[in-house]
Amino acid sequence: MTEPLFVIPLWADLLAVGLGGVQGALFASGFVGRQRLDLLGVTLIGIVMGMGGGLIRDLLLNVTPTTLQSNWYLLTAVGASLVGMLLAGVFRRLNAVIVALDAVVIGLFGAFGTAKALALGLPFVPAVFVGVCSAVGGGILRDVILGLPVAIMHVGSLYAVAAGVGCVVLAGSAALGAPIAVAAIACVVVTTVIRLLAVIFDISLPEQRALHRRKVAIETSAIPIIRPSDG
Amino acid sequence: MTEPLFVIPLWADLLAVGLGGVQGALFASGFVGRQRLDLLGVTLIGIVMGMGGGLIRDLLLNVTPTTLQSNWYLLTAVGASLVGMLLAGVFRRLNAVIVALDAVVIGLFGAFGTAKALALGLPFVPAVFVGVCSAVGGGILRDVILGLPVAIMHVGSLYAVAAGVGCVVLAGSAALGAPIAVAAIACVVVTTVIRLLAVIFDISLPEQRALHRRKVAIETSAIPIIRPSDG
Amino acid sequence: MTEPLFVIPLWADLLAVGLGGVQGALFASGFVGRQRLDLLGVTLIGIVMGMGGGLIRDLLLNVTPTTLQSNWYLLTAVGASLVGMLLAGVFRRLNAVIVALDAVVIGLFGAFGTAKALALGLPFVPAVFVGVCSAVGGGILRDVILGLPVAIMHVGSLYAVAAGVGCVVLAGSAALGAPIAVAAIACVVVTTVIRLLAVIFDISLPEQRALHRRKVAIETSAIPIIRPSDG
Repeated sequence: MTEPLFVIPLWADLLAVGLGGVQGALFASGFVGRQRLDLLGVTLIGIVMGMGGGLIRDLLLNVTPTTLQSNWYLLTAVGASLVGMLLAGVFRRLNAVIVALDAVVIGLFGAFGTAKALALGLPFVPAVFVGVCSAVGGGILRDVILGLPVAIMHVGSLYAVAAGVGCVVLAGSAALGAPIAVAAIACVVVTTVIRLLAVIFDISLPEQRALHRRKVAIETSAIPIIRPSDG
Repeated sequence: MTEPLFVIPLWADLLAVGLGGVQGALFASGFVGRQRLDLLGVTLIGIVMGMGGGLIRDLLLNVTPTTLQSNWYLLTAVGASLVGMLLAGVFRRLNAVIVALDAVVIGLFGAFGTAKALALGLPFVPAVFVGVCSAVGGGILRDVILGLPVAIMHVGSLYAVAAGVGCVVLAGSAALGAPIAVAAIACVVVTTVIRLLAVIFDISLPEQRALHRRKVAIETSAIPIIRPSDG
Repeated sequence: MTEPLFVIPLWADLLAVGLGGVQGALFASGFVGRQRLDLLGVTLIGIVMGMGGGLIRDLLLNVTPTTLQSNWYLLTAVGASLVGMLLAGVFRRLNAVIVALDAVVIGLFGAFGTAKALALGLPFVPAVFVGVCSAVGGGILRDVILGLPVAIMHVGSLYAVAAGVGCVVLAGSAALGAPIAVAAIACVVVTTVIRLLAVIFDISLPEQRALHRRKVAIETSAIPIIRPSDG
């Protein structure tokens, strides 16, 4: 079998890292009162959100982390964190923009994860798994480090499912012979659209059995647009 | 030194993954009220419990994760999670069966972890360490993701110790020239017996100094057979 | 490029593991009342603090963990944990000694992490990142496993910053042609001095915006010298 020479373009990779870093810093800046983070804390969360997905992907694939092969990834993540922190006030008024960006970031990390896994010869199901872990892994790390309930365990709006469907589309298209770049774009589009539709129409997964009242509260904690001060 | 060609049979590996997945889903289904998990959450915990031990083992050994080389691992873990979720009501009445299954799962993961570490040339002590991490790693990941106190840090009933003794038996037998399959079976038997005896007779490790009142509460949280609804 | 044949001397590596293990056990022994840990729990935290930094470093570098290539690392970590536990009463009166040891440990792990990353060909920025992760990774793992707020996210006394500056000094000196051993010693000294000055003069990073009242409470939880019993 010929090694499929799939290389994620550096600009695309850095775009995902940068958007993730901005997201992370916005999230971390949302803590007020006693839980307030200092400058370093906000930057660390930006790094975790910008680079966590790629690190988890490369750990699962047992390859040397791409994000540590060049100075640019960390510099981008730190720079994006500072931008996110400074512009937190502005961004917060652009709620729709933040949600849309977040959806695109999930799509990008899912696409890169699945594509890299397929390029390394993983079968369909684990390739999709690696993609989903790349997409949601940064958020899980963020929540664990901040001591928050892990959002995707409770969130109602099809967060991980959006990533999963996008990764399945990528892996399926690739299996049917589509060029990987086209399949990756399809993945990002599908993930973004599902996620946005889920947010707009407030769709959630079926409960195990009973009604789930906590959804709204947790959903807002996933992207803390408005978080009343407790201090 | 000839590389000991130890290969865990796929059926045995999938058996451990499946039993782990059922365990995880039973555990996750036990959350009621505000903490209730949705369908995806229960499945994720099933995947974590079924595949977490193997992933941690392969990360520590710096080899490509076996569980991602075939579609079967994830399909088994997901299928087992669904079975565990659907049959949660039935299983819960079979308390003894659950505890016994859990003990066998710890034994299997400990045996596979230690055997693989020895096969890769690790010395005695780290091989046992990798085995114990395989055995208890899935549970640690589960507790961290669910935001629970990590069970093995507080549990009284010799959970990690049972795994450790089993792994020592395996590594010791192998050092004395026993066939690895025999040593692995001994490991599973020893781990299971110690764990079950500890549960039956409520044996615990010595405290640092004082009495430890929290044991019973935490022990039940490790396997939430009965968990009164709070909603 | 010739591979720089940098090998951390075993005695230095074991020194860091041992000091980390003592630190971890002292920390874990500090829990009283309902949160009291048993013998195994204290030892596990000692292992996490003694070996966690090295494991995280080797995972990020995608090399086989050094700490699992020899029996000595685990034996040292376990032995150090027992020493730390037994002498907890004595050590606690030597507050200054504990803080100083902790500062040296951060410096050692930071130096080993950065030096190994540079030896493997990583660029400047990611090499420093790996060093900082080695220095603070054990503490993050400890806090996550114990269900505590992650100290470096909230701590005021320049904990991670001290490690970062030390790692920058190492990487910078190496880039300017200094022998790696000299650069490593400079790293340890710089990290230790910054950390101690920060503790002595109670220096902290600038807030994002407002006053940060929680600093003292969290800082004491990072090294629980005095922790009133709640049971």
